[in-house]
Amino acid sequence: MNTCISNGFIITADKTCSTMNGCVHVTDDIITYVGAEKDSPAFAAYKTIDVNGGIISPGFVNTHTHIPMNLFRGFANDLALMDWLENAIWPAEERLTGDDVYWGSMLGMAELIAGGVTCFNDMYNFMSDTLRAANETGIRGVIGATIIDFGKSIDERLAEADDLFAQLADNERVNAAIAPHSEYTVSDDSYAKLLKSAEKHNCRIHVHVSETKGEHEGCIERNGITPIARLNSLGVLDLPTMAAHCVWVSDSDMEIMADKNVGVMSCPQSNLKIGSGIARVSKMIDSGITVSCATDGAGSNNNLSMMEEMTLLAMLQKGSNYDPKLIPAKTALQIATINGAKVIGQDDIIGSLEVGKQADIIVLDTTGPRYCPSANLLNHMVYSGNDSDVVLTMVAGEVLYENGEFNRLDINEVMSKADSSAKKLLG
Amino acid sequence: MNTCISNGFIITADKTCSTMNGCVHVTDDIITYVGAEKDSPAFAAYKTIDVNGGIISPGFVNTHTHIPMNLFRGFANDLALMDWLENAIWPAEERLTGDDVYWGSMLGMAELIAGGVTCFNDMYNFMSDTLRAANETGIRGVIGATIIDFGKSIDERLAEADDLFAQLADNERVNAAIAPHSEYTVSDDSYAKLLKSAEKHNCRIHVHVSETKGEHEGCIERNGITPIARLNSLGVLDLPTMAAHCVWVSDSDMEIMADKNVGVMSCPQSNLKIGSGIARVSKMIDSGITVSCATDGAGSNNNLSMMEEMTLLAMLQKGSNYDPKLIPAKTALQIATINGAKVIGQDDIIGSLEVGKQADIIVLDTTGPRYCPSANLLNHMVYSGNDSDVVLTMVAGEVLYENGEFNRLDINEVMSKADSSAKKLLG
Repeated sequence: MNTCISNGFIITADKTCSTMNGCVHVTDDIITYVGAEKDSPAFAAYKTIDVNGGIISPGFVNTHTHIPMNLFRGFANDLALMDWLENAIWPAEERLTGDDVYWGSMLGMAELIAGGVTCFNDMYNFMSDTLRAANETGIRGVIGATIIDFGKSIDERLAEADDLFAQLADNERVNAAIAPHSEYTVSDDSYAKLLKSAEKHNCRIHVHVSETKGEHEGCIERNGITPIARLNSLGVLDLPTMAAHCVWVSDSDMEIMADKNVGVMSCPQSNLKIGSGIARVSKMIDSGITVSCATDGAGSNNNLSMMEEMTLLAMLQKGSNYDPKLIPAKTALQIATINGAKVIGQDDIIGSLEVGKQADIIVLDTTGPRYCPSANLLNHMVYSGNDSDVVLTMVAGEVLYENGEFNRLDINEVMSKADSSAKKLLG
Repeated sequence: MNTCISNGFIITADKTCSTMNGCVHVTDDIITYVGAEKDSPAFAAYKTIDVNGGIISPGFVNTHTHIPMNLFRGFANDLALMDWLENAIWPAEERLTGDDVYWGSMLGMAELIAGGVTCFNDMYNFMSDTLRAANETGIRGVIGATIIDFGKSIDERLAEADDLFAQLADNERVNAAIAPHSEYTVSDDSYAKLLKSAEKHNCRIHVHVSETKGEHEGCIERNGITPIARLNSLGVLDLPTMAAHCVWVSDSDMEIMADKNVGVMSCPQSNLKIGSGIARVSKMIDSGITVSCATDGAGSNNNLSMMEEMTLLAMLQKGSNYDPKLIPAKTALQIATINGAKVIGQDDIIGSLEVGKQADIIVLDTTGPRYCPSANLLNHMVYSGNDSDVVLTMVAGEVLYENGEFNRLDINEVMSKADSSAKKLLG
């Protein structure tokens, strides 16, 4: 099915993040033209979408999520991390079923899609149920097979991972990663086994790193080295590694990360809300590290808005370094799109509006007061916009969301079922 | 005209910030009932608005704005402060006319009203034109008569202030303040004169204080004391004073501010974006200071969203102090409503939903995915919501905005005129 998205302000998010007025042609699932209307080739579009001067952008890549935790949104706030986990989240999680995870995932994916996120990178349990939701909603994603030395044995966990990879053999939009929870919750022996599994599946590693000061310093106390150094000594960083948070990584950690091409998923809002701190993103970028941004789970955020995250990431670097020139709007936009694609190893197929890439495209309405005056639309998107500006979300050429309507899901059913699950879980 | 706003989740923002399911009765411009439907007295409502379980909250009080600067939204970003001022803002401001200010104010007020702000506290030039816009849009506000030793003489400025106060004699929604720009842009002699004027008009003082490190330390270098200490020595703080920013105030400044009952307008987003830093809001509150929050102008924010500001204020205190318990959701909501009313000296008439107060009320739609699961709506409003949730804004019992429609202004005309002004100013 061929679609022409016309009459827009195009933000490419390519290397130079060029912008232009024009149109985008989509042939089946592929972008076949990006540019001025007058230069566009003849194109037999099945559907033409006139976006009325709106922004045409690549969809956001949300690189660190726990999507089913949408069930826990607002359940407990303003608590210390361990209090929150021990007295609120963990007891509720013990009561979780696959169906709860499915409905929580459906709710989370609806929110992602409505907010212009076309690809997520998840870590949670009941992966098959998250996959079921992804297949139904049509969103692109990477599902992490979680490894943690708690509850099940490492062998059981890796068997689950094998099962997940088997289910994904022919899946065009979803693939998987091996996701050791962190340095402190997975033993050396388990790491050795999961690395073999990751090699077998030729996949990436997804892991929490130095999220809190306590976690970072606890590792140094126990092991004499930082979490990054320990993961490196275990051989983890020899595989392509995606490291979430990295609030407390040291300068020498950054050297290792740059050397080993570790991608970072910064979660600025979650890091503030839980009291973890502010990641040194600008310093990481200067060190040659690819930094993306992410929402974390709705339990600690409390929404899945990438519009908010990219803005906050930029603002925090300016404010905490007393330098307004840091992370200009174009960089923020790239962090939320093409950098995310790089971190998950898919920048050859998604993350920017370039001919030959998958048509993962969003459109933002720019007719409201927050986009006036009409110049500088890219700046408005980053510094003045919010999720409600998103009026169209397309994945692989398929429109999943348009003008408030979901094409693949019944949002009222999803909210009703998720609400019932939440009520049950939260007792 | 009597209105019943029914079937809502009421957030009172009163002393205990109690919440309940119920309805609010509005008789003419006054709140006459807040509580459960079943306990409500007989009421002959001209209009009943069923909000379908939505949130009924007091409108936000945005305590530090430069509303006409909406014309400069996105004009220049990611620049150092003096570069931004000297090469972008000031040259454009030299070309400003009263009509530009009027259309910029109309645009800003439209954005405020659509985002649930029922009262602003402004500081800019061409005050009569901002007043004209306020009278037309129906928003409540305080207009600061700006005093700065630049361009006009102090006597000319104070004559303009007299003129502004004269225009406001019978105005029920708008009043005025005397607004010396800052410690460093107004001489001792000018301060002496403006204090007499403020006493004559029995009004408050609105002033920028210790926004940047350079400003704070420059004052100490020149005068041997901090800006707060200097304002105190000049007698400014003997009048009711509203201090914007206060990012760099010292512990001893806080003692003076608490003693003199100085109200603070914290602008977290602007302070980050310009690279000023993070105000020590929790410490100020612990010191006994009333802290409100505000957007600053759209030139340095880049929007006028109080939903964003209250969230960011809470998040920043948690993150920068490594303590997630700081500024819980209820406190954030109070900072954005009743504390704002206190800072501008109007908490006897606005800022909370209490019988006898002015009916400055907003309604938020809670039927979208960001408000699911359905428990903890107050937390969702603070941590998951955004401006687009606002579906009704009422000032003094009058509905100014409902379901995306403005009752008093033609938003397309406003945007078109503001856009033309911006194009002209920005050359």
